Amino acid sequence: MFNPRAVAIVGVSKGRDWGGTHYLETFREYNYSGPVYPVNPKYDGEEIHGYKVYGSIASLPDDPPIDLGIVAVPAKVTPQIIEELGQKGVLFAHIFSSGFSELGEEGKQLEKQLIEKAKKNHIRILGPNCMGIYNPKSRIGFTHRLPLKSGPVAFVSQSGGNAHRHAFTGVVKGYFFSKIISLGNQIDIDLVDFLNYFRSDPDTKVITMYVENIKRGGNEFVKLLKETTKEKPVIIWKGGKLEAGHSAVRSHTGGLAGNIKLWKSMARQTGVILVNNFKELADMIQTCLLFKIPDNLGTAIITGGGGPAVELTDECEAYGLKVPRITEIAQKKINEFIPQVNSNLSNPLEFGANGGHQNMVKVMKILDEEPHISSIMITNNPEWYYSSKLNMDDVVKSLANTISPNSNKNLFSIYNSSRARKETIDIIDEFYLKTREHGIIIYDSAMAAAKSIYHLWTYGNYLKNHGYKDNTK
Amino acid sequence: MFNPRAVAIVGVSKGRDWGGTHYLETFREYNYSGPVYPVNPKYDGEEIHGYKVYGSIASLPDDPPIDLGIVAVPAKVTPQIIEELGQKGVLFAHIFSSGFSELGEEGKQLEKQLIEKAKKNHIRILGPNCMGIYNPKSRIGFTHRLPLKSGPVAFVSQSGGNAHRHAFTGVVKGYFFSKIISLGNQIDIDLVDFLNYFRSDPDTKVITMYVENIKRGGNEFVKLLKETTKEKPVIIWKGGKLEAGHSAVRSHTGGLAGNIKLWKSMARQTGVILVNNFKELADMIQTCLLFKIPDNLGTAIITGGGGPAVELTDECEAYGLKVPRITEIAQKKINEFIPQVNSNLSNPLEFGANGGHQNMVKVMKILDEEPHISSIMITNNPEWYYSSKLNMDDVVKSLANTISPNSNKNLFSIYNSSRARKETIDIIDEFYLKTREHGIIIYDSAMAAAKSIYHLWTYGNYLKNHGYKDNTK
Repeated sequence: MFNPRAVAIVGVSKGRDWGGTHYLETFREYNYSGPVYPVNPKYDGEEIHGYKVYGSIASLPDDPPIDLGIVAVPAKVTPQIIEELGQKGVLFAHIFSSGFSELGEEGKQLEKQLIEKAKKNHIRILGPNCMGIYNPKSRIGFTHRLPLKSGPVAFVSQSGGNAHRHAFTGVVKGYFFSKIISLGNQIDIDLVDFLNYFRSDPDTKVITMYVENIKRGGNEFVKLLKETTKEKPVIIWKGGKLEAGHSAVRSHTGGLAGNIKLWKSMARQTGVILVNNFKELADMIQTCLLFKIPDNLGTAIITGGGGPAVELTDECEAYGLKVPRITEIAQKKINEFIPQVNSNLSNPLEFGANGGHQNMVKVMKILDEEPHISSIMITNNPEWYYSSKLNMDDVVKSLANTISPNSNKNLFSIYNSSRARKETIDIIDEFYLKTREHGIIIYDSAMAAAKSIYHLWTYGNYLKNHGYKDNTK
Repeated sequence: MFNPRAVAIVGVSKGRDWGGTHYLETFREYNYSGPVYPVNPKYDGEEIHGYKVYGSIASLPDDPPIDLGIVAVPAKVTPQIIEELGQKGVLFAHIFSSGFSELGEEGKQLEKQLIEKAKKNHIRILGPNCMGIYNPKSRIGFTHRLPLKSGPVAFVSQSGGNAHRHAFTGVVKGYFFSKIISLGNQIDIDLVDFLNYFRSDPDTKVITMYVENIKRGGNEFVKLLKETTKEKPVIIWKGGKLEAGHSAVRSHTGGLAGNIKLWKSMARQTGVILVNNFKELADMIQTCLLFKIPDNLGTAIITGGGGPAVELTDECEAYGLKVPRITEIAQKKINEFIPQVNSNLSNPLEFGANGGHQNMVKVMKILDEEPHISSIMITNNPEWYYSSKLNMDDVVKSLANTISPNSNKNLFSIYNSSRARKETIDIIDEFYLKTREHGIIIYDSAMAAAKSIYHLWTYGNYLKNHGYKDNTK
């Protein structure tokens, strides 16, 4: 399915970048290596986007075998198409078309027909009502301009919109995907199948999901999650939590959403990291990819003034981190070069006018020795580098080097770039890139940092309590 | 204090933009109209930044009277300076210097001396350990490049850093200040005094505060808050909520922070809007300034896809808003031009490929008639305007016009500009500006919108339950 030898696209038209034609264009754009066969009796023998159109599925070439059929025809026609694809020997059909159980009774009947046809003709169905597959390694995608670089993140999404969004967010955040799947109505191949696949997919280091509902029995899902989380982190964003969210889910993918309390309890049992929204998902993925599992919740905060110090501390504590005093020894060491006046040397550490890059680096090296601290939060500002004409590479390297190679510490900064100016936008981009290269995460709020790190710590505890080894590095 | 006829700055030096000299420069920069007298015996008769330096306070001119003295000398010298300023007849002293109770016992003794000297010499003290006053109308500020435009927001801050930050955030968010006060250690003039002042300040429509602790009796504060919230909204950001936050506060302003539960109960009793951090404060101010108090929590969500619809609904419900079904009548009206397939017409409303600007405007006009809806959330994207070559002004106007003049509805959009690109940054700025001009708020998350609107609704309920009229418009 992920590496088809040939692909049929059933339902293409001329002149509109939509449905089957859209997929056809993406195969061209990504320079997919195998044959692609658009099918539409109306254009039999003509060319669309440089591909020869076939008048029927039966008339398609047999060699190499067609492993994947993309179906983009009106819902009512889909059972017939599935039958024809099955008879042709196609292994998998991705049904893009919508108008099924998400619309009500009539659509449910259509889905039943699809399943019957699929079983009878030995073909498996992804969807209907979904965007399908993005696999950069094999040059398959569901829309234009997706990155061709692949990476360690798998994303299984019950929303095509979120699948689409995530592919592009990854680029911005600096992570890439092994595969992205848009699931749709899951009448055949479902979330559990993909979980099972990604569990042993060597290209996938972190499994992430957007889930609205589970079609298969919960026990099977829970069992498989337990098997999976000991191998790699599983991050689930559960959509459709409350009353109206439920109703939105029903209309979206034609299923019931399940109680969020059950999901929370399931996460505790299985070691799953449960997040609340898209942003939390992206923050959590970065955290899993770049950070060590923290030994403890202790966080040292270094910042420039009393007000911000209080705010950062409040936010850390509100979301589970601790901001304990640093040891007397460390305080004394810091006091050797930073006076006590207008500074707070216990934690949060704020230096006012005694700050500056050199002093901060010295303080961070001292903090690296503190056993009850696992997280070091700074609040450096790329616009300041810019106005001070500092070399970004040097600055970031000197920060990263404060953490010794065998240290258990994670280093991150809080910076919100929401109102970047034209003059500084390049420096901000460089800042994200360089920090990432050195394993430093830039969160846009202390809340985002605290939630993500707390989750990672919880996952680490789960592994420890079950006698599993740290699988994240 | 806010409109001094003449100002003395005690403690200036040459060549360093710091302390008293910093204030001197800002008076020059803002073109303050009254006389400004720098004082330092070392530079007696010389000029700094074009101002003549005086060798002593006693030698300063008497006409016009000096209403404000800014004190930036070492902490130990401040009691003597206060005495001299008092004897000169100066009414108010702002002590910038730090090194008082925030450092411990010795500093506390110094504060006692200050109070004695102030009482004896009939001078009132702001601070010590604070940035002082920003009053754009009278051209007084505590740092460079503050906006000279004044506006309806007063901000009283127990953190100089937050006072500074807020002045600039206002510019970005599009609101301006009547006055900003950095309070410091509040040994004399305190939060309660300023609350009292701003209650009857005609230039102030919304009173906002960053508070770490209350020095005066809580009852007096509560009573005054009750008197104030019936006149204008009061938004308080309480810093130093939990254990380590407390300790950060102690070091910051030398006081105890008080339990956050007490603050929450106080907010309920007094109609105060309590926010958690700087971002929530800024969002809440925008909401108070631009929005009508909502009649109910009903929110209509219009968006392009099922996944985002579920997410926005989840976030709204998580923070108190409701997403009820719209009436059958409204659904029917919408169904006349948007088919049911691939669309959800109940709420959240998502139209998939049937969206587009014209359809959205038509839907919004229908929603404007729905009595159980007070908030309309859209998710329009300035980058799309850009790529579609639409005229921003026309688009925003047509959106704003969907709300009839007597409607009870508020209109807002969710857009996060955190990763703007160089090509689109101007269009994004225009987007913020234009939407604001038409009373549309752009929140960066549904959470931000929901929290702010829920707060405003709660405040409206408080007013209603106490028989007070809506004072916000």
